[in-house]
Amino acid sequence: MIVRLRKGATQEQLDEVVRRIRQAGLRPDISIGIDTTVVGVVGNTQSVDENLFRELEWVDSVIRISRPYKLVSREYSPDTRRFRIGGALIGGGEVVIIAGPCSVEGREQILSLAEQLQAAGAQALRGGAYKPRTSPYAFQGLGEEGLRYLEETRSRTGLPLVTEATGTHHHPLPGGRVEDRAVLEAVVRTADVVQIGARNMKSYGLLEEAGRLAGAAGKAVLLKRGEAATLEEFLLAAEYLVLHGCPDVMLCLRGIRTFEAQSFQRYTSDIAAIAILKRESNLPVVFDPSHSTGDRRLVHAVALAAVAAGADGLLIEAHADPRAALSDGQQCVTPDELSRIVQDVRKLERMRS
Amino acid sequence: MIVRLRKGATQEQLDEVVRRIRQAGLRPDISIGIDTTVVGVVGNTQSVDENLFRELEWVDSVIRISRPYKLVSREYSPDTRRFRIGGALIGGGEVVIIAGPCSVEGREQILSLAEQLQAAGAQALRGGAYKPRTSPYAFQGLGEEGLRYLEETRSRTGLPLVTEATGTHHHPLPGGRVEDRAVLEAVVRTADVVQIGARNMKSYGLLEEAGRLAGAAGKAVLLKRGEAATLEEFLLAAEYLVLHGCPDVMLCLRGIRTFEAQSFQRYTSDIAAIAILKRESNLPVVFDPSHSTGDRRLVHAVALAAVAAGADGLLIEAHADPRAALSDGQQCVTPDELSRIVQDVRKLERMRS
Amino acid sequence: MIVRLRKGATQEQLDEVVRRIRQAGLRPDISIGIDTTVVGVVGNTQSVDENLFRELEWVDSVIRISRPYKLVSREYSPDTRRFRIGGALIGGGEVVIIAGPCSVEGREQILSLAEQLQAAGAQALRGGAYKPRTSPYAFQGLGEEGLRYLEETRSRTGLPLVTEATGTHHHPLPGGRVEDRAVLEAVVRTADVVQIGARNMKSYGLLEEAGRLAGAAGKAVLLKRGEAATLEEFLLAAEYLVLHGCPDVMLCLRGIRTFEAQSFQRYTSDIAAIAILKRESNLPVVFDPSHSTGDRRLVHAVALAAVAAGADGLLIEAHADPRAALSDGQQCVTPDELSRIVQDVRKLERMRS
Amino acid sequence: MIVRLRKGATQEQLDEVVRRIRQAGLRPDISIGIDTTVVGVVGNTQSVDENLFRELEWVDSVIRISRPYKLVSREYSPDTRRFRIGGALIGGGEVVIIAGPCSVEGREQILSLAEQLQAAGAQALRGGAYKPRTSPYAFQGLGEEGLRYLEETRSRTGLPLVTEATGTHHHPLPGGRVEDRAVLEAVVRTADVVQIGARNMKSYGLLEEAGRLAGAAGKAVLLKRGEAATLEEFLLAAEYLVLHGCPDVMLCLRGIRTFEAQSFQRYTSDIAAIAILKRESNLPVVFDPSHSTGDRRLVHAVALAAVAAGADGLLIEAHADPRAALSDGQQCVTPDELSRIVQDVRKLERMRS
Repeated sequence: MIVRLRKGATQEQLDEVVRRIRQAGLRPDISIGIDTTVVGVVGNTQSVDENLFRELEWVDSVIRISRPYKLVSREYSPDTRRFRIGGALIGGGEVVIIAGPCSVEGREQILSLAEQLQAAGAQALRGGAYKPRTSPYAFQGLGEEGLRYLEETRSRTGLPLVTEATGTHHHPLPGGRVEDRAVLEAVVRTADVVQIGARNMKSYGLLEEAGRLAGAAGKAVLLKRGEAATLEEFLLAAEYLVLHGCPDVMLCLRGIRTFEAQSFQRYTSDIAAIAILKRESNLPVVFDPSHSTGDRRLVHAVALAAVAAGADGLLIEAHADPRAALSDGQQCVTPDELSRIVQDVRKLERMRS
Repeated sequence: MIVRLRKGATQEQLDEVVRRIRQAGLRPDISIGIDTTVVGVVGNTQSVDENLFRELEWVDSVIRISRPYKLVSREYSPDTRRFRIGGALIGGGEVVIIAGPCSVEGREQILSLAEQLQAAGAQALRGGAYKPRTSPYAFQGLGEEGLRYLEETRSRTGLPLVTEATGTHHHPLPGGRVEDRAVLEAVVRTADVVQIGARNMKSYGLLEEAGRLAGAAGKAVLLKRGEAATLEEFLLAAEYLVLHGCPDVMLCLRGIRTFEAQSFQRYTSDIAAIAILKRESNLPVVFDPSHSTGDRRLVHAVALAAVAAGADGLLIEAHADPRAALSDGQQCVTPDELSRIVQDVRKLERMRS
Repeated sequence: MIVRLRKGATQEQLDEVVRRIRQAGLRPDISIGIDTTVVGVVGNTQSVDENLFRELEWVDSVIRISRPYKLVSREYSPDTRRFRIGGALIGGGEVVIIAGPCSVEGREQILSLAEQLQAAGAQALRGGAYKPRTSPYAFQGLGEEGLRYLEETRSRTGLPLVTEATGTHHHPLPGGRVEDRAVLEAVVRTADVVQIGARNMKSYGLLEEAGRLAGAAGKAVLLKRGEAATLEEFLLAAEYLVLHGCPDVMLCLRGIRTFEAQSFQRYTSDIAAIAILKRESNLPVVFDPSHSTGDRRLVHAVALAAVAAGADGLLIEAHADPRAALSDGQQCVTPDELSRIVQDVRKLERMRS
Repeated sequence: MIVRLRKGATQEQLDEVVRRIRQAGLRPDISIGIDTTVVGVVGNTQSVDENLFRELEWVDSVIRISRPYKLVSREYSPDTRRFRIGGALIGGGEVVIIAGPCSVEGREQILSLAEQLQAAGAQALRGGAYKPRTSPYAFQGLGEEGLRYLEETRSRTGLPLVTEATGTHHHPLPGGRVEDRAVLEAVVRTADVVQIGARNMKSYGLLEEAGRLAGAAGKAVLLKRGEAATLEEFLLAAEYLVLHGCPDVMLCLRGIRTFEAQSFQRYTSDIAAIAILKRESNLPVVFDPSHSTGDRRLVHAVALAAVAAGADGLLIEAHADPRAALSDGQQCVTPDELSRIVQDVRKLERMRS
């Protein structure tokens, strides 16, 4: 951490800065220039609040130069974390294909779709039972019923399940959906991989709980980046999960909100973030070309781009009949389209290695 | 809703669009131009998913032209919602001043500060007991202990309390903080106004529950806009609260994340959004100049700007000794500074009316 | 400037950094911590390229801690630059009102409108003769003819003129507009204040030339912030103008492009930037509530907010009959509306002082 | 175009809308719903200003549903525009590799580097003689001298030249750089491909002139997307070039400015925009992984991602000794690194076809 004093700061003012550094158990390193005095803060600055110095009238700026996350960093562990999702190994070089509908819509739908997707090359099944929706009037998922259908699908196909946990409890709506108190517990019980959605990336209580429960149950977590979260905030959210007990975390990029948000694509596909995360973090990185574009016609191209940039996995929305999907249909690919994507991914993978 | 067909769409393709509109209980209104055919969808389109049409290969675009929120809209109720926060009336023309520390740091701190702020003109006290923090290593609030100090402060000063509810449960950290299962219930019991923070604006389960519990207890909710939430998403989040039982909701703007995020200010103070929300919605609008700027030196100017733009209230972070604050110190004003802000706000208010 | 080495950097690597610092005529200040070595660069680092260090494999990061602009900074000159625009003094505490149409549309229009705006309280007239337009098919201004009408208007009303200079030359369009080689020269000759538009804020050749010509002619420049320019880039653009000969520069904020761009407002009104620029720079600051909102209904509220935040002037689009405007009509106020805005601005001004 | 009236609009108000539509030579198509009346505007709406309707008090919103660009659209011409850059054909399926330094720094540098890059697989040479720089104190290019070195390099290597034209004229700086009046003319004379930089994408006068001069000289233009330009604005800027006489235009993406701008990457690599532009426009699309990331370590991954997403070419900054580059060194690859990138691009290309 670097503390820069304002021009004309006095010796007493410098002394106060030094005193605060020492009080925090750290060592000051003073350099007095012609125009400015800069004090380096040496030691473990992770736990020091920058405001300790920013608050002083005579401090011009405080700059943090070490990463605030630790367990998830590449510096902490040079090897990429590898773990199994069903039969697939993520983080080991192969691209893991996770596919499925936005939401579980019914028993027949998910059973039949899962078989088609498996035939198309999917190695894990995604599908939401609890759906956070922007509008209170939109379809909010089948809840526990959806989880049961997912379990049955796994029994039949062997596909491991990726499904989302939401923050708190759902309650009866005017329409009459039943109460449902313990979403997270139920999801951890059912899922092989617990998904934390982009909207909940900063629900830190949920992250703590999910880290604790998933870790205890030996389940993995797929953490989606918030739509306007910085990569640092994203890694700190992952740090919550690992610190609270779950070492098997996948980082999932799904597009960020920019000024482009409402013209040709729903979000902006920040492909370079894959390479940055692979360098900064020891966790495997998954890309979601469906949400990042919001447009089925772009999924194939962006999926390949993500693999070319180094992604460890892909999360792709698929539907047997996208036109009839209850949510996100316009970004779903069909099993046939998925099959073509997987074929190209496998070719690219061979090239990559 | 407007459905535009691609150039060269056939009569059969148009018929399919018409069929889907009728099936949804709506009426089609077809206009065939030289280059393009456009079908208007007439009726209550709120519950219709745009994907129903976007999914068709021959549909070029689908445009929604009515607002997706209802109860919170100015169209639904032309009068601004007014309600009491302690002795103050929000939504009635007077600017309500809510001030206090980012977090409750101790009994003495909050008792003494509250009296100073009251003397400076504060009409309600803010202060967090449960603090969502970006880093798992940062101070996370005093929890229930903080709530007790807040209650004692209200008993002594009469100031109504605004305090934040978080998504789920907090758990023992290595440091040894006790478990705390029912944050929302405890906060609703204690608070006069339940704050939903920016990070939780899209935690829809929390919104449902907060709307239900706060509504049942006759408490109000202050909903902060997510850092990258559109105004439409913000109003839909408020719609969740009102729909689930809490009519007394304040919309709180606190700056948005833009490309400016990391230079001179933490967020961008989107002042025009005040005037837009006042026109679009029937809910009172509060502005938070502390979080929107992240810089104490900017708070006075931005507070006045917000009032000039029509804000119904201000939410200002204050601390007796900002330099010693455990969180957000660099954006806290002192009681003296608050007093000067309030004086200027009162002058401006007279001018405004 | 601060150079942070990677963990494990060797003494030879540190020596190379030190060598480069000395070679640039500066002084190194080394601090060796447990995890990291940081080298402060002391002296005038303004002319040093950060890449000199970033390029070294063993350098983790380079952080610049002094401002890259000089002449326009508040540190360079503690007093705000004041200068006359016709009879008004900008930078002296009074809010200067500049109003007029987006573009000069005809002789009668501008003559009659100018008189109405003067009666409403305008102290300077804005109006474009050369209009940069996003679409090549849109009205591009009257060119020299427009400048002549502006001159005539000034003769009759005494109002000083603010009009835009564009980068290069306009050429005959299919429709037959005449060639026009020396836009900048013509504009400098005619205008009292040469406007550089947001689209040209980074046309550095134009800035150099405008600084030189306007300075030589004793004219001022109004520089608009680019729609996604950082405040640092904005101040560096102003530095170009001052460095090349024009000391009388106004900084004009006109909204920035954010994820909100296409919903309720065209740009985001970044009001806090007024207070930041007033602190960082010695140049007067003008706000344009018309372009920042793109919506006439928001102009009054945002204009007052800007004044409350400390603006030295306002740039407001006005039109006698906004519905018939050839460009930007939806954001124009009428002379009557302008009059009401000016009255409120004068009241607020008295409160401010 | 769709005009939606406010709730409660009268017959007279509807009539006025209809009158205006007819006056503009278009046909109204009225649909009266329960809550709202919508009027479709049928005919060639490209030349109609939306404000014509937005200005009416009783109009709620105006929505444009046809593309505002024409000549560059895929609808206008279903085949991708193909043209030669030296021996390479762009738009024909093969990925064209354009590489070179940010700026020409000297005769020896460019001669020797060009040969190395050619050996590494470059098919065209980029290098700036006129450099727009954010700071007036930074190196601004060698000007005409730089163009002469580029010409000599082409004579020796046969590599076609891509070099930037800037808006207006450069003038003697205090340091004594010579005056240089006719940048655009000189660049068009020298270059095979005239580059318009991101900062000048909205300098419409420059676009007109560049389109006219390059078209007359049979040269191509590489147009870079502005850092916060929408894709629609980007395509309209290209429309300026084509409309004014230059059919051979390449669209070059180079990253966009987002809230991520100042953390791990300079800009955000918007890879999906490649696929969108390939669908929307008939022009070839080039990606610049150097400027989009600002970090040499990310160039290889992002270059491959761009090719996987369908790019017709790559624009890569390269330098024999990036550490010694006078500008942008931290994002330059070495000839060896370029060689490895080209090898992987060729493999991917084979897979793509």
